[in-house]
Amino acid sequence: MKKVEAIIRPEAFQTLRQNLDHLGVKGLTVSEVAGCGQQKGQEGIFRGSRFEVKLYPKVKVEMVAEDHELESIIDVIMDSCATNEVGDGKIFVSTIEEVFRIRTGETGKAALI
Amino acid sequence: MKKVEAIIRPEAFQTLRQNLDHLGVKGLTVSEVAGCGQQKGQEGIFRGSRFEVKLYPKVKVEMVAEDHELESIIDVIMDSCATNEVGDGKIFVSTIEEVFRIRTGETGKAALI
Amino acid sequence: MKKVEAIIRPEAFQTLRQNLDHLGVKGLTVSEVAGCGQQKGQEGIFRGSRFEVKLYPKVKVEMVAEDHELESIIDVIMDSCATNEVGDGKIFVSTIEEVFRIRTGETGKAALI
Ligand SMILES: Nc1ncnc2c1ncn2[C@@H]1O[C@H](COP(=O)(O)OP(=O)(O)OP(=O)(O)O)[C@@H](O)[C@H]1O
Ligand SMILES: Nc1ncnc2c1ncn2[C@@H]1O[C@H](COP(=O)(O)OP(=O)(O)OP(=O)(O)O)[C@@H](O)[C@H]1O
Ligand SMILES: Nc1ncnc2c1ncn2[C@@H]1O[C@H](COP(=O)(O)OP(=O)(O)OP(=O)(O)O)[C@@H](O)[C@H]1O
Ligand SMILES: [Mg+2]
Ligand SMILES: [Mg+2]
Ligand SMILES: [Mg+2]
Repeated sequence: MKKVEAIIRPEAFQTLRQNLDHLGVKGLTVSEVAGCGQQKGQEGIFRGSRFEVKLYPKVKVEMVAEDHELESIIDVIMDSCATNEVGDGKIFVSTIEEVFRIRTGETGKAALI
Repeated sequence: MKKVEAIIRPEAFQTLRQNLDHLGVKGLTVSEVAGCGQQKGQEGIFRGSRFEVKLYPKVKVEMVAEDHELESIIDVIMDSCATNEVGDGKIFVSTIEEVFRIRTGETGKAALI
Repeated sequence: MKKVEAIIRPEAFQTLRQNLDHLGVKGLTVSEVAGCGQQKGQEGIFRGSRFEVKLYPKVKVEMVAEDHELESIIDVIMDSCATNEVGDGKIFVSTIEEVFRIRTGETGKAALI
């Protein structure tokens, strides 16, 4: 099982959510975060001291899904969240070893679906 | 070392916390998140357009613990958070490779205990 | 690739951020969390019932970086966040398998830099 963690622009979330829903991805967890990425050329020296580098509000969307769903989830995130302007965000993929549905005690694939 | 990530109902948190404390699990990190799971049959078509699928407020509880503690932590979460109503939440387990206690620089088991 | 997750005192964040920036670490994600760690000797019995163990506000800083950057990132966190008083926080390290820059579709090292 994989965890897909996408850090996106807050304004991209509704579109992403609808597109994930059409793909059949129903389970996700959202949190409000702040962040910064590469900002080459956006920093500068002002009277000898560096500009404060701002933190931008972002939304973190976490989806745990089966391995074979990974590629289509990544595609949907790209399609939904890329604007071609810097700051569109990042996707991080990692392994989840076990999942449990608390209501039933189910594990593995049965706990996800 | 394992990370146990439980996404639970906010109202289940106090009970979970007390039960984890009785088990000897002292270290945990909590965040406010929102999410949705499987909601089969809870969506519908309204004048041709789908209902907005709501996001529910949830609490994410993260615990990093030794491998041998995993089973009892899972049991305590199940016992503390299951109501038999849909939406009780999920548990995700993953591997943590290193842990450091910032105050002392300790690593591994010594950093956890 | 590694994810370094540091749970630190909120008041340590500005210093950490500046020091990471000097190290060349530009990408990070921050969230507000609450937590508790080991608090040996800080709990007690009061008229037969245990004190409520408080949750302290903390900041979670997540950095995804290349493996060879790990050691210097850990060093900077220790140097920036250790006060020698209990509650300085923890660092958790885990593996990230893939990273994507949403704007360009780049993956791997190119997506990070
Ligand atoms: N290495 C990283 N580790 C953790 N979080 C990161 C990292 N890089 C970026 N982020 C998170 O992703 C958000 C969006 O990053 P951003 O899209 O600006 O990345 P970038 O590499 O600068 O890409 P771009 O060139 O398109 O701006 C950041 O605000 C931050 O929350
Ligand atoms: N696949 C998933 N990936 C990430 N987060 C998830 C996933 N599934 C559920 N969650 C999180 O867990 C919360 C609770 O999910 P929920 O208990 O409704 O899951 P479920 O599969 O619908 O189970 P149930 O049938 O008991 O309702 C969601 O609000 C969401 O935050
Ligand atoms: N095992 C753990 N799992 C998840 N989060 C933890 C764990 N231990 C600590 N934390 C998080 O780190 C924060 C800081 O912990 P803290 O520094 O008090 O750890 P500690 O082990 O008690 O170290 P110290 O002895 O220096 O106080 C906690 O508030 C919590 O958010
Ligand atoms: Mg950027
Ligand atoms: Mg549900
Ligand atoms: Mg402590």
